[in-house]
Amino acid sequence: MLGNFTYCNPTKLYFGKDALDGLNVELPKYGKNVLLVYGGGSIKKNGIYDKVVAILKANGKNIFEDAGVMPNPTFKKLNEGIERAKKAKADLILAVGGGSVCDYAKAVSVSVNCGENPWKKYFIRFDEPTCDIIPVGCVLTMVGTGSEMNGGSVITNHAQKLKIGHVFGESVFPKFSILNPEFTFTLPKYQMVSGIYDIMCHILEQYFSGTDDNTSDYIMEGLLRSLIHSANVAVENPTDYEARSNIMWTATWALNTLVAKGKTTDWMVHMLGQAVAAHTDATHGMTLAAVSMPYYRHILPYGTAKFARYAVNVWNVKPEGKTESQIANEGLEVMEGWMKKIGLVMNISELGATEEMLEGIVKSTRVMTGGYKILNKQDIRAILKASL
Amino acid sequence: MLGNFTYCNPTKLYFGKDALDGLNVELPKYGKNVLLVYGGGSIKKNGIYDKVVAILKANGKNIFEDAGVMPNPTFKKLNEGIERAKKAKADLILAVGGGSVCDYAKAVSVSVNCGENPWKKYFIRFDEPTCDIIPVGCVLTMVGTGSEMNGGSVITNHAQKLKIGHVFGESVFPKFSILNPEFTFTLPKYQMVSGIYDIMCHILEQYFSGTDDNTSDYIMEGLLRSLIHSANVAVENPTDYEARSNIMWTATWALNTLVAKGKTTDWMVHMLGQAVAAHTDATHGMTLAAVSMPYYRHILPYGTAKFARYAVNVWNVKPEGKTESQIANEGLEVMEGWMKKIGLVMNISELGATEEMLEGIVKSTRVMTGGYKILNKQDIRAILKASL
Repeated sequence: MLGNFTYCNPTKLYFGKDALDGLNVELPKYGKNVLLVYGGGSIKKNGIYDKVVAILKANGKNIFEDAGVMPNPTFKKLNEGIERAKKAKADLILAVGGGSVCDYAKAVSVSVNCGENPWKKYFIRFDEPTCDIIPVGCVLTMVGTGSEMNGGSVITNHAQKLKIGHVFGESVFPKFSILNPEFTFTLPKYQMVSGIYDIMCHILEQYFSGTDDNTSDYIMEGLLRSLIHSANVAVENPTDYEARSNIMWTATWALNTLVAKGKTTDWMVHMLGQAVAAHTDATHGMTLAAVSMPYYRHILPYGTAKFARYAVNVWNVKPEGKTESQIANEGLEVMEGWMKKIGLVMNISELGATEEMLEGIVKSTRVMTGGYKILNKQDIRAILKASL
Repeated sequence: MLGNFTYCNPTKLYFGKDALDGLNVELPKYGKNVLLVYGGGSIKKNGIYDKVVAILKANGKNIFEDAGVMPNPTFKKLNEGIERAKKAKADLILAVGGGSVCDYAKAVSVSVNCGENPWKKYFIRFDEPTCDIIPVGCVLTMVGTGSEMNGGSVITNHAQKLKIGHVFGESVFPKFSILNPEFTFTLPKYQMVSGIYDIMCHILEQYFSGTDDNTSDYIMEGLLRSLIHSANVAVENPTDYEARSNIMWTATWALNTLVAKGKTTDWMVHMLGQAVAAHTDATHGMTLAAVSMPYYRHILPYGTAKFARYAVNVWNVKPEGKTESQIANEGLEVMEGWMKKIGLVMNISELGATEEMLEGIVKSTRVMTGGYKILNKQDIRAILKASL
């Protein structure tokens, strides 16, 4: 736990089959005008929309809608949301959906009163908001991003071929989040599995950094073991409540700032995956899965000890009679086999990326400096080529 | 993660060698009158008192003192603190010390305006406060209780021979806590080791409950492995910053409500240990250590599968060719050896308990219902006899 840090996570979570009742506790704390933000309308099919609207009405709220938030929310859509929130004089933004909807709600919340181009302010300059922020609440229907308990917000700018995330401070965290594992049951398997890998990748981005011996690493090994176990159950039986609830809870704690404490953190898999998504619009978790193995094999020589620890403590690789490098590589092999088994996409070609796109993706890839190797253009090109 | 639950932990933590600078961020949020609460005066010897007072003065505060908080804070002392806080018209209670000082500060904070006997209200009836609560901040100088980030408060009533803890809700949590691992360096080894076992016991009280397969169990296994590793380093070299900082961080997360989520939780070791302390005034962590092995061996047959999992995942017991019961018992043997090695007290006689006190201690032991076996008087007597 080297270095100085602060920790504060004020988000109130309501978890379980009755979690939506928490809305009745939270709504009275805010004004009458609620901007209801959601995606493509699956919440209308599965009944969650009706339940939420009934509770909003019972609490005397004026409901304004902002539908059609896409899986990779765009800057263009953000501008539309800002106008809708202004028109509604929104006292609360209620996001009902997955991480994209929560991310988008947060972006709207900090942009309505910011008085300048929010893309430039928040996603190019990474400024913190100095204006009034509209409070955000979330009703989660898809698991993975951790957006329900953090300040993260990822927006895609198609004109600039950039998908960029800003991790805002506490003031931007959702005030409350409703986590009912049953709300995730109707999700297609592709989306469920993609979310599971998003969670795993969040943990690994923080785990594969630093050389100090850190409590956070031990917590992450626990989260990873829990995730692998519950994923195996959920892939066989997607309506196993216990498994889906453990996955939901793990997702929240994988990316709510806790396990980053004391770590430099890497995030290069996300930079590579987000660059792929900016060119293909592919599902987030699948872009991460598709570049992971080439990336980890590329950086393994620079962090062999940690990859060996990972192999033993997370994947139960037996270390006896093997070199550190052998143990480390065996861990990645076991991980790769597991990824294939649960149905993850293992190459970017399958996501629509082509040889011709490669230089563009290389160009769109931001370079982070907290991992075991700071990548240069050649590294990035080699990893993406191996991912094709 | 069965059942419904809520989670919210609003305490702001400042961690690291410069953590005390956080006081300059926090103090301006509160009024001028600060009640400075501390223990026997060790903070005057190690310089922490002077540093805190200098920051309070620089922030223009009126300082009122309430010194002499004892390791097991008494109801008598609590009444004195209430009077001091009233006289000071305290806007903030700043606790500088270990868990006892933080616990005591919280008890004062909810009692000043409660308008009735706080012992009866909070420690017999376990009511939540309905009155104004004076905000509490903590500067931690001893690690173990987790009091810096939870609503726990344990008070001893000598007249009634009772040591009782109330776990208050979010409104009673410290508003902020300052965690500088170096502030714990001057602590005598006996106190450090006692704190380490207090942490371990907090985790085990939550771990040894329930039969569901829960993310919390995996997180706890991670915390336990981190704790054991860092304790081994710290016992050899008490000023190893990395080890002491990991222990400090683990203590906070062992008892800030996170790992209890989805668990029934046990707390019988604490009930037994607190009964011993009510009769001997012995150090908290040592009372827990002294009763643990007899307690765990007594309940093992009722939770064998979990004790076997504990043996393998925490103590690296090899399961091959052994029965579940053999694995479970081997885990406790390894744990017992480790406890002796780091210098824990392994029987209550050494803490001043005698055969003659036994019936009194049995009588003082509250029975909890969340563990693997609900104890009757004979169980309690047998465990305490085996602890002598």
